[in-house]
Amino acid sequence: MRLPLARPLLLPVLIATVLVTGVARAATDSRAADLLPLLLALVLVLLGAKLGGALFERTGQSPVLGELLAGLVLGNLGLFGYHGLDRLRDVAGIDLLAQIGVLLLLFSVGLETNVPKMMAVGASSLLVAALGVAAPMVLGYFSSAWFFPEHNPLAHWFVGATLCATSVGITARVLADLRRTASTEGRIILGAAVIDDVMGLIVLAVVAGLIGAADRGEAFHAASVLWIVGKALLFLIAAVVVGSWLSRHAFRVATRLAGEGVLLTLALAFCFALAFLAGAAGLAPIVGAFAAGLILDEVHYRDLKARDPGNRDIPELLQPLTTFMVPVFFVLMGMRVDLSVFGSAGVLAFAAVLTAAAIVGKQICALGVLERGTDRLAVGLGMIPRGEVGLIFASIGSTLRIGTQQVVGSEVYSAVVVMVALTTLVTPPLLVWRLRGRVQS
Amino acid sequence: MRLPLARPLLLPVLIATVLVTGVARAATDSRAADLLPLLLALVLVLLGAKLGGALFERTGQSPVLGELLAGLVLGNLGLFGYHGLDRLRDVAGIDLLAQIGVLLLLFSVGLETNVPKMMAVGASSLLVAALGVAAPMVLGYFSSAWFFPEHNPLAHWFVGATLCATSVGITARVLADLRRTASTEGRIILGAAVIDDVMGLIVLAVVAGLIGAADRGEAFHAASVLWIVGKALLFLIAAVVVGSWLSRHAFRVATRLAGEGVLLTLALAFCFALAFLAGAAGLAPIVGAFAAGLILDEVHYRDLKARDPGNRDIPELLQPLTTFMVPVFFVLMGMRVDLSVFGSAGVLAFAAVLTAAAIVGKQICALGVLERGTDRLAVGLGMIPRGEVGLIFASIGSTLRIGTQQVVGSEVYSAVVVMVALTTLVTPPLLVWRLRGRVQS
Repeated sequence: MRLPLARPLLLPVLIATVLVTGVARAATDSRAADLLPLLLALVLVLLGAKLGGALFERTGQSPVLGELLAGLVLGNLGLFGYHGLDRLRDVAGIDLLAQIGVLLLLFSVGLETNVPKMMAVGASSLLVAALGVAAPMVLGYFSSAWFFPEHNPLAHWFVGATLCATSVGITARVLADLRRTASTEGRIILGAAVIDDVMGLIVLAVVAGLIGAADRGEAFHAASVLWIVGKALLFLIAAVVVGSWLSRHAFRVATRLAGEGVLLTLALAFCFALAFLAGAAGLAPIVGAFAAGLILDEVHYRDLKARDPGNRDIPELLQPLTTFMVPVFFVLMGMRVDLSVFGSAGVLAFAAVLTAAAIVGKQICALGVLERGTDRLAVGLGMIPRGEVGLIFASIGSTLRIGTQQVVGSEVYSAVVVMVALTTLVTPPLLVWRLRGRVQS
Repeated sequence: MRLPLARPLLLPVLIATVLVTGVARAATDSRAADLLPLLLALVLVLLGAKLGGALFERTGQSPVLGELLAGLVLGNLGLFGYHGLDRLRDVAGIDLLAQIGVLLLLFSVGLETNVPKMMAVGASSLLVAALGVAAPMVLGYFSSAWFFPEHNPLAHWFVGATLCATSVGITARVLADLRRTASTEGRIILGAAVIDDVMGLIVLAVVAGLIGAADRGEAFHAASVLWIVGKALLFLIAAVVVGSWLSRHAFRVATRLAGEGVLLTLALAFCFALAFLAGAAGLAPIVGAFAAGLILDEVHYRDLKARDPGNRDIPELLQPLTTFMVPVFFVLMGMRVDLSVFGSAGVLAFAAVLTAAAIVGKQICALGVLERGTDRLAVGLGMIPRGEVGLIFASIGSTLRIGTQQVVGSEVYSAVVVMVALTTLVTPPLLVWRLRGRVQS
């Protein structure tokens, strides 16, 4: 029923009903007060993401580039004298929503492929990953040795280590936007990105261990590295044995549960559980989310799917969640790029060399692709982005010392920040250019 | 392509691909470490909510009762000697997700009705709300005067004030589960619950002001109450003028934006923006979310809807989000009930009287329903639940003093906690019993 009076009544109506609807709760409610900065941040992030994304999508780019640039703008308005949004990136909760967003993204990407398909390109992924760790590391060593000949060789290796790990979020997102997740190139990139992330962490543990030993004048203990690998193995065995058993049976049992939303709730719980276990085992939570997607298969839940009024499968149910939360992650990544770092010529020169080392190093790794007819350049481009891992390595390095010398000083740290920003921003357009060309050929 | 080898290969495959996929990131990543408790909490909350909900749905109850009880169990395992989950209710982020969940719930409920429909029962809502504030307040006054004759009369009025505000979340959820949001009873309850929440807050401001003045021996300043109402009016005018203009035009303009997910993103931004503005004006953010739903109408976004591959409208797009986040809110509400409060006989006796006053007071308010053929009992039952507002009032009271006497002592506070728990738990079954009966009659 739509009343003909609706419009003229609108103002008095809302003053009468909702007016009265209003007044003072947040003022007395300490919890609600925390929510307000998050709400404002979400409005800005969502609108910025959609505007930026639409702009770049119209020019044939991946929307993720628009989201990153929207974040870059929102996070750097301080440079133009506007400081009202300076605290936006630190708002409580926005980081957690972003992290849940990237978990759901990797879960979705995992759902589009499965273990046998990943295994079919497993040898290539392993080779690409190994080369993708070794080449940037050696190049990073020489870059650092060239700029800072007075530093300890172990410090050069540490700089090399910051170049190792591919940030799988960016590439996964571009592949998903282009619907190329399940292509041979897509699977090799995803597998290799995950593997070289791991190798990078082993490298970190070894190099940091060697530095600590050198600083204390002790011998290096290999046991700590073994423990890292051992925990990871424990998780993986649990994921395979318990996870795939659960996936096969829990969804069937759950068919007996009354109520709506059982399928989505169970899928989310499965994703979060594996992400938690991965994290508890010392792995990245996104590795767990990706594994959950790989293990979970539509045959496991066809009865639950049939019960949904729209016969929706898990990817369809996840889509509104990723629409909401995934852009939060990428806008936040953009926000965290501090453009003021670009102001120093010395830093920029070293950053340019590091970025070149990072990009060239990952092109070398494409030689590891074994499949014929596969686009090696696309694989190499997909491996370029360095994300938070590089920054985390650098910040660990800044806490380490050899004698009186800081392993990662402020100049090197700033250069790593620039390298991460450049490799992140440069990848979406390059990958879109290469893969979109291939789709049409 | 499903390989016949899939099963026997599963174990070695995951050891080869994902194994390697694993290892040590969270250990070095301070951000990821914060995520882990949230992930574990979400797994427990989601599974608990679904199990509890399904159990109660099967017995013809509202699933929200099952979610509340699941929370009650998860939050009180400490009573049975298991303290592993004691910190669950305080995990960073879970409260924010719950609050976003209840915003989305009220947004959905608002979408199901509109301003003219709410206005059609506006007089009833206003009367019901006014009686629903006055009656429990007077009953609360006498309950307190009976149990604590030595207290100052203003302290008795304060206890009465804790009984005023209906918690709209519980009732909105039960109405949504029964698909009765748009019924006459549903609209009267929703309107009145929102209005009496407001009235309760004016009452709080007045009583707390009088107590403060009495304590300092000064006169009471009415200006602070006027300022509260003034800010609320400002918000409402802005919501009507800007909000309904925006709703009508922004969605049409947005049709030109490229990319997927424009409709959902815009709807979320609209909901969060009004919730933020409501909060900034001193109102409860859920009032803003509800207003956003009321204002937004399908005609405003039919072009955007037509562009969606599944032709989905906003309620359909919101559904996976509410499936994920709304139960988090209700489980958390259950978790916050501290059962150990039920241990004291003195507290329980006063709590029983308070609960009776709360329930009887809200049945009296049903006399305010003007529409013929409307189920007054259903309206009265729908107004029963007291939620966080009552607790917030009580905690404010515990910070106030008149001379040497605390306005809300620990016994009264505990009794209010029990009253909130009982009215919350008792409403879903009563409302389901009454409304489901009426649907079939």
